[in-house]
Amino acid sequence: MKANPRIDAEWLHGRLEDLARVGATAGGGVTRLALSDEDRVGRDLLRDWMEEAGLAVRVDDLGNMTGRREGRERIAPVLLGSHIDSVRRGGRFDGPLGVLGALAAVRALDAAGIETRHPIEVVNWTNEEGVRFEPAMLASGVVGGRFDRAYAYDRADRDGVRFEDELRRIGYLGREEDRPESAAAYLELHVEQGPVLEDAGVPVGVVEGIVGITWLNVTVEGQADHAGPSPMRLRRDALVAASRLVAAVDRLARETDEIAVGTVGRLVPEPNLINTVPGRVVMSADFRHPDPATLDGMVERFRAQAEQLSAETGVSVTVDRFWTSEATPFDVGVVGEIAAACEELGLPQHRLWSGAGHDAKYVADRGPAGMIFVRSRGGLSHCEEEFSEPADIEAGANVLLLAALRLAD
Amino acid sequence: MKANPRIDAEWLHGRLEDLARVGATAGGGVTRLALSDEDRVGRDLLRDWMEEAGLAVRVDDLGNMTGRREGRERIAPVLLGSHIDSVRRGGRFDGPLGVLGALAAVRALDAAGIETRHPIEVVNWTNEEGVRFEPAMLASGVVGGRFDRAYAYDRADRDGVRFEDELRRIGYLGREEDRPESAAAYLELHVEQGPVLEDAGVPVGVVEGIVGITWLNVTVEGQADHAGPSPMRLRRDALVAASRLVAAVDRLARETDEIAVGTVGRLVPEPNLINTVPGRVVMSADFRHPDPATLDGMVERFRAQAEQLSAETGVSVTVDRFWTSEATPFDVGVVGEIAAACEELGLPQHRLWSGAGHDAKYVADRGPAGMIFVRSRGGLSHCEEEFSEPADIEAGANVLLLAALRLAD
Repeated sequence: MKANPRIDAEWLHGRLEDLARVGATAGGGVTRLALSDEDRVGRDLLRDWMEEAGLAVRVDDLGNMTGRREGRERIAPVLLGSHIDSVRRGGRFDGPLGVLGALAAVRALDAAGIETRHPIEVVNWTNEEGVRFEPAMLASGVVGGRFDRAYAYDRADRDGVRFEDELRRIGYLGREEDRPESAAAYLELHVEQGPVLEDAGVPVGVVEGIVGITWLNVTVEGQADHAGPSPMRLRRDALVAASRLVAAVDRLARETDEIAVGTVGRLVPEPNLINTVPGRVVMSADFRHPDPATLDGMVERFRAQAEQLSAETGVSVTVDRFWTSEATPFDVGVVGEIAAACEELGLPQHRLWSGAGHDAKYVADRGPAGMIFVRSRGGLSHCEEEFSEPADIEAGANVLLLAALRLAD
Repeated sequence: MKANPRIDAEWLHGRLEDLARVGATAGGGVTRLALSDEDRVGRDLLRDWMEEAGLAVRVDDLGNMTGRREGRERIAPVLLGSHIDSVRRGGRFDGPLGVLGALAAVRALDAAGIETRHPIEVVNWTNEEGVRFEPAMLASGVVGGRFDRAYAYDRADRDGVRFEDELRRIGYLGREEDRPESAAAYLELHVEQGPVLEDAGVPVGVVEGIVGITWLNVTVEGQADHAGPSPMRLRRDALVAASRLVAAVDRLARETDEIAVGTVGRLVPEPNLINTVPGRVVMSADFRHPDPATLDGMVERFRAQAEQLSAETGVSVTVDRFWTSEATPFDVGVVGEIAAACEELGLPQHRLWSGAGHDAKYVADRGPAGMIFVRSRGGLSHCEEEFSEPADIEAGANVLLLAALRLAD
């Protein structure tokens, strides 16, 4: 009975183009912030497309949109989801690829006349980016139990406008009983937000999980001095000390393994004047790794090096580890089905970890989840230059389709 | 006939206190910006004290105040000067020490009944600090021929108020013919703006000149990336590269000699976000040395290291040497008389270079000049914590007195 289903690439590219017109920027990207007028127009389009595909659409109390295709049995559904909100001047594919790819998958099942045992639900999660309403992945976080609904409702944008009020304003404030169900499995298709697949020459990646992330705030206190009259041997230059810590973060990650990353993204010297020896530097450090012990080890080695530097140079260094997001390894069974789908399509099974967060992280709190990445040109994302080849997009959507079929059957 | 003149320390400390009340800050410092109401009050006080000391006071077209004590002959005067304007929340002594110390010296000559062959003029230079009207040393620069008067007149503060208009408003716009004369010698007493004398345990320093200063603007261009999904080996992190240049500036100065200094005072990563690999860093480099060839050598070695870094890491580094202030070695004869004055007082003859600019630099364009530094606690200046011991101030003023007497006789 089972045909050999494939997504309709022309349909998918067409709808990605349609959606990219909503909030299109002059530079070829998209600004479609969560619960903005652009988001509403995008949602209305998505609702039309869901209904056109025969899905029963419902909207929950967080604005999450779910389109349901019934299965042969009344059991937990397989969820396919992502988000259509964007950052400012973001890319065209990012989250929309996962939502429209899911819709393309459902349409392909219809076209091939395939019924599945599990229902399949296509989900558009509200406010994944967290650009307008912090934090990111707000709605999947409430559904997954990370955040209270009241907390989400009270998030405000920079103009003080509340999340709940904007949900109501754009007509997407639904009911709690219409949230996506706890899923038998969750699949999320997304563009890779890095250069790993491009570097490996592979169109699609099998994501093994989301790495653990920890953030440090590092304060280096030395002595501000005039740049002229202070001899080198009498200085306690906070920036010279901080520059050694920047090098240490980089070196620690490189020495750990191929997966570990370490970044100083933010660094502010004080007073930051050309003719003054910096007396103080405040800087960040961001370490990421799938293994919690390895992550902690990097932080501890960094602390030790900061102490050593302090002893050697007479500057004081304080390290505040103020935030950690634990690693989320994806379900082995789901990851295996994604790999099998790649094999079925004759694609390499390239496994990698996601260095960034996605809704899949919070959905994984409630059930088995996995992700599929599509190669990004130059590894660029969250910018107008973000681009994935049409053939890669098609390949990624077909992996989603076949993995969904394996999991729903 | 010649007595053994010494300054009246009580008088000097009293007048320094009086002047420090004008623009006094809560933190024990002074804000007396050039041509402000506070500057006017300070000038009025100074004029009274000059007249009280029997000096003939004149004000020139730049607001410079000169108090003249006649000599036995009508020949070029010996000038003793500094400035009474301050930075925001600056110290109490800084420039006022040089002006009031000069006045104390003249009073000491009177008290001892000493006539000199050369006239002696006490000068208060307008706008030395350059905080309100850029650039620094504006009025001595016009008198020395560095700047046009029209240029000075058109300098405006942050509210757009013109230098000339403020001179007129506070009643200190005089005539060109009343500028300080070309001097037989110029002496400037000033607090040291660094920790060298304190470190050496010496109250007074004989300044050999003002170092050459050169400023570079350094731009490091790498590739901005998300901190998570970018593997270390594929990054071109502009801040990691820049941190090596910060270390290079520090190391180059230390390797050169005891006098050389090198400072990165300003450094701005872009986009300067905790979770983004910096794509660009703009930073400054400040090198100083008395010897022009050595100064150029440091810049050339820095350029070479920047090129090597670029070749090794794939980031691009551009180095723009946009400003140089040439070194000003002081007149050997004047420096020698200052040293002799130290010896006469039983003080160590500690020679050092000034790492910062002073009016003496521009006065030296027109004739022999020299400076005397007074030890500063902690090397601090341009801040409310600036402090010099009364005994050190007295010693510095006596060196000024005896050096002036040697040069004027």
